[in-house]
Amino acid sequence: MITVILQLICPDRPGLVSLLSGWIASHNGNIRHADHHTDEDAAMFLSRLEWDLEGFTLSRDEIYKKVFELANSIGGKAQLHFSDELPRVAILASKQSHCLIDLLCRVNSQEMKMIVPVVISNHQNLKGVCEQYNVDYRYVPVDQVNKLHSENSILEILKDYKIDLIVLAKYMQILSPDFINKYPNIINIHHSFLPAFKGARPYHRAWKRGVKLIGATAHYVTESLDDGPIIDQTIVHVSHRDEVDDLIRKGRDTERLALARALRFHLRRQIMVYQGRTAIFA
Amino acid sequence: MITVILQLICPDRPGLVSLLSGWIASHNGNIRHADHHTDEDAAMFLSRLEWDLEGFTLSRDEIYKKVFELANSIGGKAQLHFSDELPRVAILASKQSHCLIDLLCRVNSQEMKMIVPVVISNHQNLKGVCEQYNVDYRYVPVDQVNKLHSENSILEILKDYKIDLIVLAKYMQILSPDFINKYPNIINIHHSFLPAFKGARPYHRAWKRGVKLIGATAHYVTESLDDGPIIDQTIVHVSHRDEVDDLIRKGRDTERLALARALRFHLRRQIMVYQGRTAIFA
Amino acid sequence: MITVILQLICPDRPGLVSLLSGWIASHNGNIRHADHHTDEDAAMFLSRLEWDLEGFTLSRDEIYKKVFELANSIGGKAQLHFSDELPRVAILASKQSHCLIDLLCRVNSQEMKMIVPVVISNHQNLKGVCEQYNVDYRYVPVDQVNKLHSENSILEILKDYKIDLIVLAKYMQILSPDFINKYPNIINIHHSFLPAFKGARPYHRAWKRGVKLIGATAHYVTESLDDGPIIDQTIVHVSHRDEVDDLIRKGRDTERLALARALRFHLRRQIMVYQGRTAIFA
Amino acid sequence: MITVILQLICPDRPGLVSLLSGWIASHNGNIRHADHHTDEDAAMFLSRLEWDLEGFTLSRDEIYKKVFELANSIGGKAQLHFSDELPRVAILASKQSHCLIDLLCRVNSQEMKMIVPVVISNHQNLKGVCEQYNVDYRYVPVDQVNKLHSENSILEILKDYKIDLIVLAKYMQILSPDFINKYPNIINIHHSFLPAFKGARPYHRAWKRGVKLIGATAHYVTESLDDGPIIDQTIVHVSHRDEVDDLIRKGRDTERLALARALRFHLRRQIMVYQGRTAIFA
Repeated sequence: MITVILQLICPDRPGLVSLLSGWIASHNGNIRHADHHTDEDAAMFLSRLEWDLEGFTLSRDEIYKKVFELANSIGGKAQLHFSDELPRVAILASKQSHCLIDLLCRVNSQEMKMIVPVVISNHQNLKGVCEQYNVDYRYVPVDQVNKLHSENSILEILKDYKIDLIVLAKYMQILSPDFINKYPNIINIHHSFLPAFKGARPYHRAWKRGVKLIGATAHYVTESLDDGPIIDQTIVHVSHRDEVDDLIRKGRDTERLALARALRFHLRRQIMVYQGRTAIFA
Repeated sequence: MITVILQLICPDRPGLVSLLSGWIASHNGNIRHADHHTDEDAAMFLSRLEWDLEGFTLSRDEIYKKVFELANSIGGKAQLHFSDELPRVAILASKQSHCLIDLLCRVNSQEMKMIVPVVISNHQNLKGVCEQYNVDYRYVPVDQVNKLHSENSILEILKDYKIDLIVLAKYMQILSPDFINKYPNIINIHHSFLPAFKGARPYHRAWKRGVKLIGATAHYVTESLDDGPIIDQTIVHVSHRDEVDDLIRKGRDTERLALARALRFHLRRQIMVYQGRTAIFA
Repeated sequence: MITVILQLICPDRPGLVSLLSGWIASHNGNIRHADHHTDEDAAMFLSRLEWDLEGFTLSRDEIYKKVFELANSIGGKAQLHFSDELPRVAILASKQSHCLIDLLCRVNSQEMKMIVPVVISNHQNLKGVCEQYNVDYRYVPVDQVNKLHSENSILEILKDYKIDLIVLAKYMQILSPDFINKYPNIINIHHSFLPAFKGARPYHRAWKRGVKLIGATAHYVTESLDDGPIIDQTIVHVSHRDEVDDLIRKGRDTERLALARALRFHLRRQIMVYQGRTAIFA
Repeated sequence: MITVILQLICPDRPGLVSLLSGWIASHNGNIRHADHHTDEDAAMFLSRLEWDLEGFTLSRDEIYKKVFELANSIGGKAQLHFSDELPRVAILASKQSHCLIDLLCRVNSQEMKMIVPVVISNHQNLKGVCEQYNVDYRYVPVDQVNKLHSENSILEILKDYKIDLIVLAKYMQILSPDFINKYPNIINIHHSFLPAFKGARPYHRAWKRGVKLIGATAHYVTESLDDGPIIDQTIVHVSHRDEVDDLIRKGRDTERLALARALRFHLRRQIMVYQGRTAIFA
């Protein structure tokens, strides 16, 4: 059953739920999910509406047209999605395979509705994994003298494969602001409980500090490193018996979970981003 | 700021969100929270709408009248609540004080919006606690020969104090079906992760079974003991080093949390009960 | 660095820690880990000692001989293990691949110290996965008329591959008591928070009961189904928005984690089993 | 049953477990708990031994003498404790009562083995609570011009009441290094998941950052604010629906739990502090 998903953010005012649901009802739409949130501090209204395409009296094109008219009329920003349109996702990875394999398994088992046509890596060791899952593998070494050169290669690949979304599955390179501006949809997994242990080697620093819990944070990537909107955070207990290697090992499990949960929220269009934060309608 | 809270359950059909939100908008209502859920299995629609009373063009009496007309017209069942109407709650306890004190503290600090005029117990040791919090304390010993006698005493107290809701805060007596039918709103805390370890001495049985997690379950009380709709469940890790006494001790913390969370959901009218289950709009 | 791991269970009495550690010290052993537990209820002493083989003045054979003499002298039962002896593990699975792939990945990345020479399944769909990981795959369909026939085929395979440990990674068949008696080391993952929802279709029953948490339990297999000693339990939160399919999906993640954690404890010889329960020295 | 608890930290070398347990056995000691940990990075050996005083052939004075001789002989630092010696604890609080009441309840119910003769506060509102629990209450306002003056008043009270341990139960004042040096045993509860949100107003900053989990950290107090050895950390999930006030409310529950757990570890002498970190033998 195909559904239409509308995500809308606009200034708050009375009557918005009625306006939106009324419009859907007037075209014979059967609402599956209706989620709303008012951020009173920001005076913003957030809405996510999902309804059946079947029986709805407007075509896809008409829906697009009308939705953006509606959004404009209330000073809002809308995003529209049809559930049968699977996004094309590029996974960027370095040496570690655990997040990559986890995602490929979830795609394979239909748990995650997306198409992964290509994996890009600055290392060569993940080629075999990609072949197992029939995913193209592209090796783009990092050119230390001219990082721009590597990024341009990646951009070209993204273009070739018509990529909608980038997932950084333990890609241990920092992308330039230029790159990030070109691709607004990038999800990263950071191996700490942000904002604790921003930057490099978080597990080593967590061990040194003697924390009793470690975590992982999945977030959208913005120009300011590790400061993008947080989507999901998971934690795991550690004790004095855990060495740095144990933290890294335990961390792998939380990283996989946080990244998979975040990506699933994204794919189901359950995330609203505003003012550097997310609302998750799940 | 006083709000109106409408909770509605009715057979599912298209247009319900629009119908409800449209009615609120037509009387100038400013919606604060709008939560909906469709249980496709049961073909039921659940809705919780909360809007400002100020500025709404209907009086409380008119709202009552209209809401129940509306509910009838769609074959639904509605509950209406105004946020300034604090329910009168009786807490029933036995010997253990941890849940009772926890609730009284939360009422005291305004974290829980309710009035607790009386505590009823089949033991005498909690009298001092009640005095500290200026709550009446009524001792109703359990008459083993004639349990009905005790229950009648309790019912009279409930009537005297105009009680809306009963909280069983470690009240270790089983209430008769008759009693339960007279009071539809009873919340209990059971000291296990239901449906595991139904019945008596759950911690002893959990210890014997060698489980690695123990839990607590807050639920509405129905005629079938420990089978009422579950509101909240919390867990805590245990190890082989924990004796039964440690399970009981650790359990106290989860019991307090589960009961407090459940009661808060209830007080904020965030719980929808249907078909022996709950939906929590939180 | 190779270590010797001694696990001992015996009746409690004063001087046991001294006796054991004294014996190790007297042969120049450097203890890495020393864990002890006294179950006062059962009057049993449990000990796990791990020390460096290098520098120890006894050979492996002498250690075996002496350890069992020592254990006998105090009425105890000992198990001895050298860290460089990797157990040979057979994984039994049915249709679902998530636990199987998870384990194979962990073996592959050296996170789990074991050898998996063969996977046995009553379905054919996991053959490709096994090939990817260079593991033999053996298809043993369940003979509904004569289950014994299937079990005999499995036993033969286990013998051929010199299997030390069986892991039931979502193997949806019940093994006969006869089979279980022949292989004392079987670890199973049950898809519920035992003892809740023993038996078949636990997610369906959990959904029906309206629980707010679901879980998974890794346990040793004994003759009495789902009643074996519990090794690890994990849980995940669910809400009214989760359908049975969501419980199954969320459950997969907890199943993988519980099974992997339990198996790791086993491989590191951190589990002591006694009186139907486990002590985990982790 | 009175037990002796020995906590020892010394440079690692072979034979230490045997040396310590041998000494206990040689005086007829029955060991209840024996925990050891080797920090290989630091080349340190940590040991906690607990044995029955009854039947042990040395008196308390002789134990003291011998233990410190033993510790000296291996270059270690020992702490000795007898389980019937209840420490005298001063609780410092400001306006908020939740941690204070929680601790007083736990003392009252014998869950926490300590004596709380006095509560010191820079506010007057907690006087009534202290009276309920028959604990002296001393008001020491903070002299903004001369903070030293206030601290001297506190020090005098601590001396008068022969205080062994200070618990900062939401005491919102910073103690001077001088003060801290005079009292090595101070436990504080910080309302964030350290090292995230060190310093003031952590809940406000957590909300602003849009984190999905908030936490609390119980730690020993050292001169460097919020950087002392971490004892326990707890977390709670938050969502976009939670305002700052909800974070504060949810935080209260995690603060109480983390502080109570940490204090219990301390009272049972289960904490070893070394190199700015803790090992918890629990």
